[in-house]
Amino acid sequence: MKIFTRRDFGITLGKGIAASTLLGGTSLACGQSTKALNKKLGIALVGLGSYSTYQLAPSLQDTEHCYLAGIVTGTREKEKIWQEKYAIPKENTFNYENFDSIANNEAIDIVYVVLPNSMHADFSIRAAKAGKHVICEKPMALNVAECDAIIDACNKAGVKLSVGYRMQSDPYTKEVKKYVAEKTFGDVHFVSSDAGYISNGNPDQWRLNKELSGGGALMNMGVYSIQTSIYGCGSNPSSVSAQEFSTRPDYFKDTDETITAQFEFPNDAVAHMMTSHNANGNRLKSHCSNGWFELDPAHSYGPISGRTSNGNVISFPHQRQQALQMDDFVKHILMGTPNVAPGEMGKRDMIIVEAIYRSIAEGGKKQMLDLGNMGIVG
Amino acid sequence: MKIFTRRDFGITLGKGIAASTLLGGTSLACGQSTKALNKKLGIALVGLGSYSTYQLAPSLQDTEHCYLAGIVTGTREKEKIWQEKYAIPKENTFNYENFDSIANNEAIDIVYVVLPNSMHADFSIRAAKAGKHVICEKPMALNVAECDAIIDACNKAGVKLSVGYRMQSDPYTKEVKKYVAEKTFGDVHFVSSDAGYISNGNPDQWRLNKELSGGGALMNMGVYSIQTSIYGCGSNPSSVSAQEFSTRPDYFKDTDETITAQFEFPNDAVAHMMTSHNANGNRLKSHCSNGWFELDPAHSYGPISGRTSNGNVISFPHQRQQALQMDDFVKHILMGTPNVAPGEMGKRDMIIVEAIYRSIAEGGKKQMLDLGNMGIVG
Repeated sequence: MKIFTRRDFGITLGKGIAASTLLGGTSLACGQSTKALNKKLGIALVGLGSYSTYQLAPSLQDTEHCYLAGIVTGTREKEKIWQEKYAIPKENTFNYENFDSIANNEAIDIVYVVLPNSMHADFSIRAAKAGKHVICEKPMALNVAECDAIIDACNKAGVKLSVGYRMQSDPYTKEVKKYVAEKTFGDVHFVSSDAGYISNGNPDQWRLNKELSGGGALMNMGVYSIQTSIYGCGSNPSSVSAQEFSTRPDYFKDTDETITAQFEFPNDAVAHMMTSHNANGNRLKSHCSNGWFELDPAHSYGPISGRTSNGNVISFPHQRQQALQMDDFVKHILMGTPNVAPGEMGKRDMIIVEAIYRSIAEGGKKQMLDLGNMGIVG
Repeated sequence: MKIFTRRDFGITLGKGIAASTLLGGTSLACGQSTKALNKKLGIALVGLGSYSTYQLAPSLQDTEHCYLAGIVTGTREKEKIWQEKYAIPKENTFNYENFDSIANNEAIDIVYVVLPNSMHADFSIRAAKAGKHVICEKPMALNVAECDAIIDACNKAGVKLSVGYRMQSDPYTKEVKKYVAEKTFGDVHFVSSDAGYISNGNPDQWRLNKELSGGGALMNMGVYSIQTSIYGCGSNPSSVSAQEFSTRPDYFKDTDETITAQFEFPNDAVAHMMTSHNANGNRLKSHCSNGWFELDPAHSYGPISGRTSNGNVISFPHQRQQALQMDDFVKHILMGTPNVAPGEMGKRDMIIVEAIYRSIAEGGKKQMLDLGNMGIVG
């Protein structure tokens, strides 16, 4: 059994080797990239809940090309704690009322919206209007119309937009994308993916409140399964059908508990996915013509774990995915490297989410999808 | 990581320890079981295709309580080869025309029907009428009506009936059933199972001919996924929905290529399955309230491989599942031990198969199932 390392594949992991890799890149002149990467961009986190507290803020201690410059919170007590812990100046501290004045703050280059789903569109659009680049946490918004509004606002303001798809910067994800692109195991025939956890917490949490979340398991974890299904076979789906299951209606009063869905792909692959707030699942397995590859866990904060039909273990040094993600976005802004999680990707996934809910409403009827012209795969 | 052995669980593996276990069994008097197991029952294989040739006949060299006593074949050239290889007397050799005269042959106790699916009912019923116990290969028949006819014929003739569900005698299967029964990992919330392979062989094979097979992947491999879904959560499903996918219609002209299905269970578990003649898959994973267990491969001829969320590897000494299966059936006949794969189980699975095809015909509509009164679970 061979343990792969990043060296085996020459994969860019960002930290440590990113700068040199970028300096040697072919798409930009040397002088330009050196200059661009001399600057660290300032990020302001909007919403200081658990994801900001335990993932994003610690990750921003590991980033090379950006740093935690500001905070936006509606909770007065959090201001001082964060200011002290992360040396954030008072003038870089905002609340939801004075948020728009962030336009006048030159220390903030990027606004990262980490609020409940129902507030993504509003704050992303306001951030764009303030002239800030935007990272919008997943799911991008409550519906496709909101995704369009965010994309339009960023385009009009001339700012960059990214969705908080940390897995798009993860080396394991990149590795399986490589298998698909290079047909390492032949053509993909079937993809199976699960994304769920058992929710037993406060029943009043915003994720279980449809007005705030827009939906349950599908909006929260389902987007992982949608993404793994897509990069697990290297194509956008051409159709989807779906089913909803409810076993704890007293707890899941307002939002979907468990959803299964099936995809057809124009490259002849088929996939099925499960997402749940009542069952664990964290997996991508692609069955190909000449073998298979699997990630399980596939989208934890890490470490991810992978294996292939060759008996190989896929293994990379653990790095915070969110640090890689935010650095990737800064490189896109400063150097024109590809945006690995653009707004159009969030919109594509929301088109699929809406089709899944529509299929469920129509008793599992297959919904055709026309995603071929979106220019987004993976 | 602990490697489990049969000793850890006191599991009866049949060969070697079966006799002593049975002698010590509580359900039968000692004298009775000794007497019963002194006799080896004679099995006649009906149909000498690859499954008989490469699995059943070799397995019958490993059985303790039965032996290969006779053959029934329509291919004249096979008679002499088999007679010589397995020391089968001429009088124990039959063809499809003179098959009914097997009634007069006392060396044959059990007829094992290993013919194309469309011939299962006919030969199982004729075997019963000839006074022979019957093993009918899976899937039991083309439809539920045929299953009923087989069950009725066996009841009327006073002979025992079993379906060729080798996995029901497999120690890995028994092990995961034990996890479910004892709630080793808590309640089962979600089961995912796959059963498929890529068919590229002779397009004229009987499995791809609906008249002979009754259906494609679902009839062939799908019954494994149905069974793993059921014993993976310990309950018969209360509903099923399903979808069919076709990517190689030129090859799969007549039979289903890939089918996905979703189950609800009265114990609140949910499952989804995939079966295919165009994708590999061989897996059962049950996600429970306090962990998970997985078999992958789950239903190969062996060795099976299993693991659990405790970091344990499930491992048993490899034995031919078909030998265990046929010995289990003989013990049922001679000693009244439970029939681990009775006709009613085959019928239950055919009820589910029919519901899956009905759901597909109705655009994925959920089909309610009333299997609670069948007395068959697992």
